[in-house]
Amino acid sequence: MFRIVVAPSGFKECLDAEQVADAIQAGIRRVIPGSVVDTVPLIDGGEGSARLLARATGGTLVPVTVTGPIGDPVTAHFALLDDDTAFVEMAAAAGLSLVPPSRRDPGRTTSRGVGELIRAALETGARHVVVGCGDSGICDGGAGALQALGVRITDEAGREIGPGGAELLRAHRVDASGLDPRLSEVDMTVAVNPRNALCGPDGVARRYGPQKGASAQDVELLSSAMSNWARLLDPDLAELPGAGASGGLAAGLAGVLGARLESRFDVFLTSTDLEQRLRTADLVITAEGAIDASTALGKIPTEVARRAKRHGKPVIALCGTIGPGADTSYEHGIDAITGILTGPVALPDAITRAPALITDATARTLRMLLLGTTLPAA
Amino acid sequence: MFRIVVAPSGFKECLDAEQVADAIQAGIRRVIPGSVVDTVPLIDGGEGSARLLARATGGTLVPVTVTGPIGDPVTAHFALLDDDTAFVEMAAAAGLSLVPPSRRDPGRTTSRGVGELIRAALETGARHVVVGCGDSGICDGGAGALQALGVRITDEAGREIGPGGAELLRAHRVDASGLDPRLSEVDMTVAVNPRNALCGPDGVARRYGPQKGASAQDVELLSSAMSNWARLLDPDLAELPGAGASGGLAAGLAGVLGARLESRFDVFLTSTDLEQRLRTADLVITAEGAIDASTALGKIPTEVARRAKRHGKPVIALCGTIGPGADTSYEHGIDAITGILTGPVALPDAITRAPALITDATARTLRMLLLGTTLPAA
Repeated sequence: MFRIVVAPSGFKECLDAEQVADAIQAGIRRVIPGSVVDTVPLIDGGEGSARLLARATGGTLVPVTVTGPIGDPVTAHFALLDDDTAFVEMAAAAGLSLVPPSRRDPGRTTSRGVGELIRAALETGARHVVVGCGDSGICDGGAGALQALGVRITDEAGREIGPGGAELLRAHRVDASGLDPRLSEVDMTVAVNPRNALCGPDGVARRYGPQKGASAQDVELLSSAMSNWARLLDPDLAELPGAGASGGLAAGLAGVLGARLESRFDVFLTSTDLEQRLRTADLVITAEGAIDASTALGKIPTEVARRAKRHGKPVIALCGTIGPGADTSYEHGIDAITGILTGPVALPDAITRAPALITDATARTLRMLLLGTTLPAA
Repeated sequence: MFRIVVAPSGFKECLDAEQVADAIQAGIRRVIPGSVVDTVPLIDGGEGSARLLARATGGTLVPVTVTGPIGDPVTAHFALLDDDTAFVEMAAAAGLSLVPPSRRDPGRTTSRGVGELIRAALETGARHVVVGCGDSGICDGGAGALQALGVRITDEAGREIGPGGAELLRAHRVDASGLDPRLSEVDMTVAVNPRNALCGPDGVARRYGPQKGASAQDVELLSSAMSNWARLLDPDLAELPGAGASGGLAAGLAGVLGARLESRFDVFLTSTDLEQRLRTADLVITAEGAIDASTALGKIPTEVARRAKRHGKPVIALCGTIGPGADTSYEHGIDAITGILTGPVALPDAITRAPALITDATARTLRMLLLGTTLPAA
C-alpha cells in the first residue's frame, strides 16, 4: 500500500492549509485511488492560523473588535483551545492584509490591536497564551500592544509616544507599573521564526520593511528605531533569535512581559505528530503559495522536508508560484518542485481556481512520478 | 547511458521547433549532464515550417511579396529545398497571424497569396511543389489561390467572384482553361491534417471558423459555401480526409490542379527518421504551445507519442498552456504532461521568457521523474 503524507501550508490570501490538503488529496485519489493519504495541514502562526487551529483542536474562535493597524476598528479574533489556552494570531489584528496598499507604512502602523486581543483572551480566564507571529503589517516592536496592556512608553519630555515604529526613535522610558495584573498569572509563549532578528544588517526593518511599504529611507530610520528599542528593553534582544518576529512584537512581549520565544515549528509541528507520521510514508507532499529563495529560510515546506529527510523520505513541494531562488530548496530536503498554473492568468483568477488547479497539478505530478518508477536509473 | 529523444513542435507565435528543442536540451543537461540527447525538431506544415525546413535541409528561403489575406501586400516566402522541390507554407501568405484580430472574418479573407507563392516557385523551375497547410486565417476553399494561378471562378451571370469564402456561395462555374501551363509539368503534394474535412457537421467552417473570427451565423453561411464549392469541384471532396485543410485550400488544389493530399506526418516525420531514433530511446520528450482536447486530433505530440508507443517508450509532453481536455492525450500515448509557467503572468511576458521557462520546466520535470525512479511501485 502506497502511503502519502500531505503536509501543506496554506496559500496566503487564497486557501487555508486544510483546503490545500483536501485539494491535493483529491488529485492523489484520481491517480492512485488505492493509496493511503494522511493529511497534516500545517500552520506557521500567521494569517489564518487561529481559524485552522480552532478547527483542528475542536476549539472556538472568539471574535473581538480591536484597533486595526492603521487605527480603524477591525473585527479580529483569537482561538480558545481545548484547555485554558488561548491562541492569539497577531495577523488577525495587525496583519499586512489589513493595511490597504496605499496606507502601507510600517513607521506608522500599530500592533495595538494585538494587545487588545491578549486582553480579551485574559478575560476568558486563559492561563496560557500563545501569540502566533507572521504576516504582520507593522514594525513597532510591539509597543502598541504593550500600551494597550497598560505599559507607558514615553519620550525624554515624559510624553507618551504615538503609534508606529518611527515613534520608537524617541522612546526614552518604559514604565510597566500600570500593566494588566492578570498578566503576572499567565504563561505566555510567542511562536516565532527564529531567523528573524530585531536589529543588525538582517534585522526586521531591513528584511521586511520594504514589503510592508517602507522606502529605503524609512527602512534605515526604522532600523535605528529598533536599535533604540532594544537598548531600552534589553540589549540582548537585539540579536536574540526570533525577537524580530512580527515587526519586533516578539521583542516587546519578551522584554516587558517575560514571554518565552519558541520556534513556531516546535510549537505547531510537535502538536501534529508530524514526525511520527512521516516515518511510515512512501512519499511526502508539502505545499506553499510560493516557493522561492525565502522558502529555505524556515518556511513550512523546508521544515517539513528537513524532518522527512531524517527518515530518508522523498519530498515534493507543490506551489502556486515558483519564484527566483526556488532551486535553493533542493539543498534543504525538497527533491522536486511543481507549479499549479496551466496557462497565462491574472492572479485573482488563479486564486479563484486554486483548488481545481491544485488537484489537477497533483494528478499530473503523480503521473510523472509513476512514469519515473518505470524508467531505468539515469 | 540514458538516451532521450526530444521531438517538439514549435510554440506558435513564440518559438520554432528548433528553439524549443534547444531549450529542452539545456534543461536536460542541467539535471542529467551525462545523458545522450537526440533532438528532432518537428514541423506540421503550418507557420514557421518553411524556415525550419530550409534550415534542416540546407535549402534556401525565398522571399516574395504577395497579396495578404486581407488584400494588403505581405512579405511571404517559400523554401527551395535541396533538389528541384519547393515547399510553400500557406501560413506565410494567408496565415491567421497575418490577419489583425479586428479584421478576422473568414468570409472575406483570401488565399490568393498562396497561389502567388506557387507561381513564384514555378518560376524557379521547381518540379515538385509541397504545400504545407496549417494555421490559416482563411476559409475560401483555395479559390483565391486558384484565381492567382489563372482559374476563372464565376457566378451565374458569368461574373468573376470576389475574395473570401462567402463568395463561394454564389460560385457557379470553374474555368481552368487559363491555368498557368507550367502546372501541368509539376507534381504537387498538399501536406494536410487528414482529420480536416471540407463539409459536414465537423467540416472546416464549423471546426475552425470561430477561431478565424466567424460568428455563429457566418459559420453556417461558410458551411453552405463549402458545400456549394464541393458540388462544383467534385462531390467526393466533401468527405475526403484532409480536403478541409487550411480553410479548404486542399480541396481547391486537389479538385482543380489534381494535387495529391498526404498526411502531414507522413510527409514530414518520415524525412526525420523519427521512428528509427525512437527505437533506442529511454525517454521521449515532445512539446507544443498548448496541450488540450485538440492535441489528440492529430497534433505533433500525439503523433510522436503514437510512434513512440509502438516501441513501448515513455512519453512526456511539455507545453506552454494546459487547456481543457488535455487529459484526453493520455489515451493516445502521452504518459505525463507538464506546463512551463511559474507564476501569474500575461501572455506577452510568457512569450518573451519562453526559452528560460522551457529549460527550467524541463529541469524540474526531470527531477520529478528521477525521484520517481527511487520510489516503490504504487
